Amino acid sequence: MNNFEFQNPTKVVFGKGSIAKLSELMYKGEKIMMTYGGGSIKKNGVYDQVMKALKGFSVIEFGGIEPNPDYDTLMKAVEICRKEGVGMLLAVGGGSVIDGTKLIAAAVDFKGDPWNDILVKGAEPGEVLPLASVLTMPATGSEMNCNAVISRRATKEKFAMGHPKYYPVFSILDPEVVYSIPKKQRANGLTDSFIHVFEQYLTDDINAKIQDRWAEGVFKTIVEIAPDVMADKPSYDACANYMWSATCALNFFICPGVNQDWSTHMIGHELTALCGLDHGVTLAIVLPGTMSVMREAKMKKLEMFCKNVWGVDAKGDEAVNVAIQKSESFFNSLGIKTRLSDYGIGEDVVNEIVRRFRERGAKLGEHGIVTPDKVEAILRDRL
Amino acid sequence: MNNFEFQNPTKVVFGKGSIAKLSELMYKGEKIMMTYGGGSIKKNGVYDQVMKALKGFSVIEFGGIEPNPDYDTLMKAVEICRKEGVGMLLAVGGGSVIDGTKLIAAAVDFKGDPWNDILVKGAEPGEVLPLASVLTMPATGSEMNCNAVISRRATKEKFAMGHPKYYPVFSILDPEVVYSIPKKQRANGLTDSFIHVFEQYLTDDINAKIQDRWAEGVFKTIVEIAPDVMADKPSYDACANYMWSATCALNFFICPGVNQDWSTHMIGHELTALCGLDHGVTLAIVLPGTMSVMREAKMKKLEMFCKNVWGVDAKGDEAVNVAIQKSESFFNSLGIKTRLSDYGIGEDVVNEIVRRFRERGAKLGEHGIVTPDKVEAILRDRL
Repeated sequence: MNNFEFQNPTKVVFGKGSIAKLSELMYKGEKIMMTYGGGSIKKNGVYDQVMKALKGFSVIEFGGIEPNPDYDTLMKAVEICRKEGVGMLLAVGGGSVIDGTKLIAAAVDFKGDPWNDILVKGAEPGEVLPLASVLTMPATGSEMNCNAVISRRATKEKFAMGHPKYYPVFSILDPEVVYSIPKKQRANGLTDSFIHVFEQYLTDDINAKIQDRWAEGVFKTIVEIAPDVMADKPSYDACANYMWSATCALNFFICPGVNQDWSTHMIGHELTALCGLDHGVTLAIVLPGTMSVMREAKMKKLEMFCKNVWGVDAKGDEAVNVAIQKSESFFNSLGIKTRLSDYGIGEDVVNEIVRRFRERGAKLGEHGIVTPDKVEAILRDRL
Repeated sequence: MNNFEFQNPTKVVFGKGSIAKLSELMYKGEKIMMTYGGGSIKKNGVYDQVMKALKGFSVIEFGGIEPNPDYDTLMKAVEICRKEGVGMLLAVGGGSVIDGTKLIAAAVDFKGDPWNDILVKGAEPGEVLPLASVLTMPATGSEMNCNAVISRRATKEKFAMGHPKYYPVFSILDPEVVYSIPKKQRANGLTDSFIHVFEQYLTDDINAKIQDRWAEGVFKTIVEIAPDVMADKPSYDACANYMWSATCALNFFICPGVNQDWSTHMIGHELTALCGLDHGVTLAIVLPGTMSVMREAKMKKLEMFCKNVWGVDAKGDEAVNVAIQKSESFFNSLGIKTRLSDYGIGEDVVNEIVRRFRERGAKLGEHGIVTPDKVEAILRDRL
């Protein structure tokens, strides 16, 4: 096992009725900016629950944060925070709203250029505003981690940021919000969570047994609960297990001391930036290519995945085939198609993505083994 | 799944060579009390590594904290802390030293009587000194949780305490300390960790899937690594997996929203208090009795344990028998005997323990189902 440091200070308040606890949890005396997305919270009752709990607090609302939150939108929120002296942020939404709110928190007191310094160059943040969240869409794990992904529509770019200062102070996870999530988004959330685990598991085997068993535990749970989560009326327990699985897929509990990949995400981000595909969909397209092209480096884990998640004792190329077939079948069972051609995407997009990675001198994946040549092979495998 | 709140703020610094990081992690400018046990750290090199890293800090040493730390010993440390103005505690040892140091941290500024108020009545602590640890014996999980168990030899009593203020600020886990741990203590540590998982798993099934799969992951890891851990020269990876398993067995990652038992521990504590048995040994004795006597309430989990940990598809009484047989075989494989008679303990001790629980009106276990009558049946089962 590799050496590691681990600390995740976020407090999780989980369960039905927990949004009401906001009134105890928010910092008293601070002006609050409540951020949200396209307004679904005004239809599903979450907005009303939040505002009821925040009675007596001084709250500014900032709505309209997009899926794949746009840098220019977020900078408008930053201006308001500066002008109004906002002291705490409350993201009410899914991963995009929480991610966007992390950038707002980092940018308000930041001296340099947030895009170039924080996102492109990964600079150390200065003072970061305390932020909390009410999760409305289980998928990204942003509610209990210190990462965010920000898009810039003006340049069709998408970059990640991460720093311990970006952990939410607390996050409220009420599984009842799942009932009103459209099926397509539930499918994306299950897929995103599943592939988050992959990025931390499908690497080289460094004999980190707890981490491996826990990753497999998240895989198995997601597969087991998916039919109930995708039902017209999912059970409360399915919603609760889905919500906690999505959080545990990316709260770093499964990855201490583990070499991580994330090349599937990096390639997927380009597909979203260039073609507007949903994040979860891009991952379902790319992952089978990663498994196929990178099979040599990942063989031990592919075999472990087949055995411990699917109960199939396959070796070598057979294990690769089983892992791909089981994963694609799972995505298909959620209604997600897994070929670029299913979305009308062809060679021109592949060429542009590869060009971008070459230009950046990108070396993705564990130990930088996913070179631009490998990216090209992965994407051609998915045409 | 039940509603829950979860927050574990402890920072873990894990891996070979990590003791040297103390110099960065300890609070600058505070007078430090370094607590330790019987002096094994002076033989295995840990003391020298710690003192080297603490060069330049103002350090008072307090050694001699016993296994099952004694209240009267700890109160001597409290007096010194008050007199010397100690501002931070560093526990260098196993669970007993870390547990004892938690009581010191809680008692220094406490206004009432620490024994009666904090331990017997579970009172809210006041200001608690910041504490950190260098773990030398994986077993109790105290390095990453907010609990402690304190003994009082004068009255042959043993009580637990727990509060979020007792989380260590950080803990250093260097697996290389395992090499010098006597085999008997390694066996106790593996047993203790295994049964910590049981206390959080072998209850009623509330359909918390991640928690169940993660508990099973810790069971499987402990069973898999045990032969290597017990070898004359264990591998580094075995030591690392053992150390992280022991921490993850009781850092609350496997139990959010789960009903917990802990009756085996409560009964075991009495065996230690009355007969001086090692903590791990008491658990190995009591657990099979808990499984047998409480089988009706725990049946679904006993069947799940057989299937998911041992690959045995048993139902009903057969599952109980398999669970007991597999668990006892595992403890025996570590050299731990599992009957009271193996330690010369007879009915008189059983009667005294039952008398104590009756006197206290104890209702142990999940939902208080382990009454004094059940305790009696459990202990008679183990004669």
